[in-house]
Amino acid sequence: MFKAALAAAQADIAQFLTAELARFGDDRVAQGMRYATDGGKRLRGFLVLETAAVFGVSRDQAMFAAASVECLHAYSLVHDDLPCMDDDDLRRGQPTVHVKWDEATAVLVGDALQTFAFELLADPRAGDDAQRVALMGSLACASGAQGMVLGQAQDIAAETAQAPLTLEQITELQGNKTGRLIEWPALAGAILGGADPAPLLAYARAIGLAFQIADDILDVTGDAATAGKALQKDAAAGKATFVSLLGLDGAKARAEALVAAAEAALTPYGEKAHHLRALARYIVERDK
Amino acid sequence: MFKAALAAAQADIAQFLTAELARFGDDRVAQGMRYATDGGKRLRGFLVLETAAVFGVSRDQAMFAAASVECLHAYSLVHDDLPCMDDDDLRRGQPTVHVKWDEATAVLVGDALQTFAFELLADPRAGDDAQRVALMGSLACASGAQGMVLGQAQDIAAETAQAPLTLEQITELQGNKTGRLIEWPALAGAILGGADPAPLLAYARAIGLAFQIADDILDVTGDAATAGKALQKDAAAGKATFVSLLGLDGAKARAEALVAAAEAALTPYGEKAHHLRALARYIVERDK
Repeated sequence: MFKAALAAAQADIAQFLTAELARFGDDRVAQGMRYATDGGKRLRGFLVLETAAVFGVSRDQAMFAAASVECLHAYSLVHDDLPCMDDDDLRRGQPTVHVKWDEATAVLVGDALQTFAFELLADPRAGDDAQRVALMGSLACASGAQGMVLGQAQDIAAETAQAPLTLEQITELQGNKTGRLIEWPALAGAILGGADPAPLLAYARAIGLAFQIADDILDVTGDAATAGKALQKDAAAGKATFVSLLGLDGAKARAEALVAAAEAALTPYGEKAHHLRALARYIVERDK
Repeated sequence: MFKAALAAAQADIAQFLTAELARFGDDRVAQGMRYATDGGKRLRGFLVLETAAVFGVSRDQAMFAAASVECLHAYSLVHDDLPCMDDDDLRRGQPTVHVKWDEATAVLVGDALQTFAFELLADPRAGDDAQRVALMGSLACASGAQGMVLGQAQDIAAETAQAPLTLEQITELQGNKTGRLIEWPALAGAILGGADPAPLLAYARAIGLAFQIADDILDVTGDAATAGKALQKDAAAGKATFVSLLGLDGAKARAEALVAAAEAALTPYGEKAHHLRALARYIVERDK
């Protein structure tokens, strides 16, 4: 039931993006934008749709914020994969944008996808004026130099640091790099629903950290073919991870505790949140 | 009088950006954001302040849109200067961001400056909800894959094209790459003033094209030390420019005709537009 709901969200977001991206032509940047937003788990978009649904917001309306955060996430991956950044050749089992085209195209595709994330939120169908301003302002805060980009900079700085990061430092880094863009969908759902965002933000913070711990576990125990990307890069690079700091069993226990905390945060919403509850479990049990 | 007004706008925008950028820390991305937005002609920001002033909008309010477009412009320069793009070592007489730091920092600084442009427009002091949504939506359209980024992609594609661009193609390319971000300030002023944007957009379109023709003339006749950047790059690369297509005298005559058209478009605003009138002339007479 959860798997079917996630698959339906993936298909709906893909269809929506195909329609909205049609406004762009067929030059290589437009091609790259379609390529970079094709596939993926769509967990952030699913989170928007599900948190909005808790408050009875229509799926058609929530789709703009769902697609927006997927474009924002895709931009960050395209730039993160660049040779001067993480230098990855493979993403979702396919050549990365700079491998398929070239670096200049990848820079521009990332730039244009960030812009498009805000363009989608400015669409009149995305909400009333106050909602759209709140969505755009909060997305900017979550993804900018106090949020996601700060986390990316902290990640790069860690590579040349004298000592491996402490647990506190890596928690902060991941909270910025990955966490903020997992929290934003919860905030977006609450903005669209006119509701207090606090319980859903607590939920999102817990699954955001669990997501990263699961990524670190997957990096050690996973299969590259299933994951669709290179694994065991962190260990090879001697980087501190939740697994190197907590041990494999310790990391698994911490992820479990976070899933329990996430489930507890959903108590006020009862049955309406059953997909969100299942998502918390899925995040630590996924194999890619 | 015009020079004093431009200098005052430059100083006010610099002071405003220093205050608003203080929210970011002292990591290298934050440092790079301050560095990349320091200096420059601030013509786009000045255009926002002056068009808003035509409609009696307060300078304090218009300053958010003025600083926003300067950040958007600065992001495009940081990415445009990257080795995989134009590969420039010098900007405004100083080392470019990737030279002063490194490529990864330059990618992130550009990314964060784009985000910050939208964050500034989301500020409650920037306008009411409807104005802020209109500002953000129009900035996204002007700067994305149907606007500035499209122009950058067309510029890159032109480098490997079989034949040099025609006058029509280069006019379209420059309209996207440079023109859209010179038109946006006129639109922003009209949005903030609740006015019909048509006359100011006609003015901005004319000076946008004149600006690019003047750039091409400066590339041939200018002094690199005064301009603070490498010149005669286009001729060396065998690229089509307004000068190569129209001749030096033809290009000068076309720029003059555009200044006259820009001045004519300002007729409805009488004396309130005297700085905008002077700006049109400045754009074709500047030496950097």
